[in-house]
Amino acid sequence: MPAGSGFGVENLPYGVFRPTGARPRVGVRIGDHVLDLAAALDDPVFAEPSLNGFLARGSTEWRRVRDEIVALLTDPARAAEGATALHPLADVTLLLPFEVADYVDFYASEHHATNLGRLFRPDSAALLPNWKHLPVGYHGRAGTVVASGTPVVRPAGQRKAPSDESPVFGPSVRLDIEAELGFVVGAGSAAGEPVGTAGFAQHVFGVCIVNDWSARDIQAWEYVPLGPLLGKSFATSISPWIVPLDALAAARVATPPQSPEPLPHLREVTDWGLDIELAVELNGETVSRPPYAPMYWSPAQMLAHMTSNGARLRTGDLFASGTISGPERDQRGSLIELTWNGAEPLQLADGSERTFLADGDVVTIRATAPGPNGTRIDLGEVTGRVAPTPT
Amino acid sequence: MPAGSGFGVENLPYGVFRPTGARPRVGVRIGDHVLDLAAALDDPVFAEPSLNGFLARGSTEWRRVRDEIVALLTDPARAAEGATALHPLADVTLLLPFEVADYVDFYASEHHATNLGRLFRPDSAALLPNWKHLPVGYHGRAGTVVASGTPVVRPAGQRKAPSDESPVFGPSVRLDIEAELGFVVGAGSAAGEPVGTAGFAQHVFGVCIVNDWSARDIQAWEYVPLGPLLGKSFATSISPWIVPLDALAAARVATPPQSPEPLPHLREVTDWGLDIELAVELNGETVSRPPYAPMYWSPAQMLAHMTSNGARLRTGDLFASGTISGPERDQRGSLIELTWNGAEPLQLADGSERTFLADGDVVTIRATAPGPNGTRIDLGEVTGRVAPTPT
Repeated sequence: MPAGSGFGVENLPYGVFRPTGARPRVGVRIGDHVLDLAAALDDPVFAEPSLNGFLARGSTEWRRVRDEIVALLTDPARAAEGATALHPLADVTLLLPFEVADYVDFYASEHHATNLGRLFRPDSAALLPNWKHLPVGYHGRAGTVVASGTPVVRPAGQRKAPSDESPVFGPSVRLDIEAELGFVVGAGSAAGEPVGTAGFAQHVFGVCIVNDWSARDIQAWEYVPLGPLLGKSFATSISPWIVPLDALAAARVATPPQSPEPLPHLREVTDWGLDIELAVELNGETVSRPPYAPMYWSPAQMLAHMTSNGARLRTGDLFASGTISGPERDQRGSLIELTWNGAEPLQLADGSERTFLADGDVVTIRATAPGPNGTRIDLGEVTGRVAPTPT
Repeated sequence: MPAGSGFGVENLPYGVFRPTGARPRVGVRIGDHVLDLAAALDDPVFAEPSLNGFLARGSTEWRRVRDEIVALLTDPARAAEGATALHPLADVTLLLPFEVADYVDFYASEHHATNLGRLFRPDSAALLPNWKHLPVGYHGRAGTVVASGTPVVRPAGQRKAPSDESPVFGPSVRLDIEAELGFVVGAGSAAGEPVGTAGFAQHVFGVCIVNDWSARDIQAWEYVPLGPLLGKSFATSISPWIVPLDALAAARVATPPQSPEPLPHLREVTDWGLDIELAVELNGETVSRPPYAPMYWSPAQMLAHMTSNGARLRTGDLFASGTISGPERDQRGSLIELTWNGAEPLQLADGSERTFLADGDVVTIRATAPGPNGTRIDLGEVTGRVAPTPT
């Protein structure tokens, strides 16, 4: 199997694919191939068109199956067995990997929250009073989480500039991206039983890349006092491969120092910061390299917060980090930050410039992480092209 | 069949019930009985443990089945046929009637929004600038929508009074209710294809009663800038019976005058205001009678707004009105309004008083509407008892 591809046996991310002329089923990516688990393993859960059945089985089974796949792919005596179940990636269609139950989006980057605070409240403290006490977040629309590659139709909506007397309705003129990581809940939990930070690996199966497309003009007009709705709910794209937590052991790092110390239910018992590096491409040109490691709140803290009121988890719940922005200008995960709310347009290599997205623009977000023994784990990519608002 | 019960043949709401010793299935309520549709009609969709399969079929089929049920229940020649499929209500367990896809909660009562504005921003205009231009709303947690009768565990969470130096974590001390109506989407829509106000009856199957339990202290600390999360996500209770729109024809009224005139995509082409009367009982004592008729935004306008950015609908989407409050003090749909943020406690008939809910309190919300020919349509009730936070 290919060494150094980023998709070696130390990775083995799960997805759902459709082979030519056959039904969707579950596979794992190995190099430039997909291993058809429905064919390779004698288990009908992999013949389903989503990962949810497998996710619901829990962490003991996740690890057992992972060990079995590694054995299948690395034991020379089983090479023939594995080979019959391999499809070249180019021959298959990748689909949405799981059915999303609830979707929560957090706001866990201090650099991102600070940038937005400076842009929108220049005369006040950049961070709001609650920000360092809890991971701020909100529910997004689960039904519009889409597979990578799905065209993103520019949303129409109401917007009103402060100088306008009344709002207008029409295509968003400030369409943006948000580069994020998503965390996929496998094992649910019971109502009234909070999952502490220590329960993270028992409940969360793995990680994907998220582009939380955002219409800044719609959002700015609608969001007081109940938060974003239509500025976000038109589309959220996710990468096709869910990388299991077991593949990210070498990427685990401490979060940055947290001050004030979080309340006891939010304290980490083990490191779940992640040294994952993202890259944002606009029409093939890299415009930003957001690092995940400086994120203030870890995903284990997000999970503990989200269930601290007794809310149950369900298989397929997705929670995302919020925009990942590092301390440097070229580490910002959204156009509103990269162009400082449009005041500093991006100069692209093709001679054009951008404040926000134009119709036809293609945004691709990639990510990699350290793997064992100096290897890299590739999280793949999430991509989408902006389609014009239908008239 | 019982005349004047509120559950006559002019009503026929749908739910899911479990007969003693048998599997859950779909039924309609008639008087004090449930008609087992899996037994009465030759259609496996009614043997499913949720309404979703039937809802997905769309409005033509909804009406055909309704006509068939009316025929079965009113044709003397078919009385024996119907009788074998009837269960006394007392012999069955009522369950969550449908699987909730996405849940959106609006904020459509001008009296409620004005009351909260006066309480929290006494020095500013009571309504925020966007409020009369669009139905403000947010996504809630679909996975914690529960059946009527499910105990509601008092949530723990972070709270911080303005006078506190730092937040504390513990059981909410300001647990509240919100009396609302919910609208159940049957037929989904395609991404990128907004459903205008004229599409309401094609996509929405029916109406239920909603209690959107709210922890005001958790909400107040968390909600800036992304809206409510843990202050709401622990539980939302819904009534067991979904009343079809066809049963509410006599309840349809115009919304109050809307000024400024809504933008074209939000204008109503036919009246979808609803003359539904609610009653809120606390431990058996009626403490409020919120009227739905004065609600500023109609559910057709909420639907049009929610899809105006191209977001698709799915079968099982639930959207709720937000707290229903009328102009009078005894028409307010939440304790925070009824007690004016705790300053004016409710004096209960048993000699006790309440600002917010105590452990053991039982809240029941009922609703009725005008039916044809002077009858009343009963929407039933949603009830829940507050259980203490586990220690």
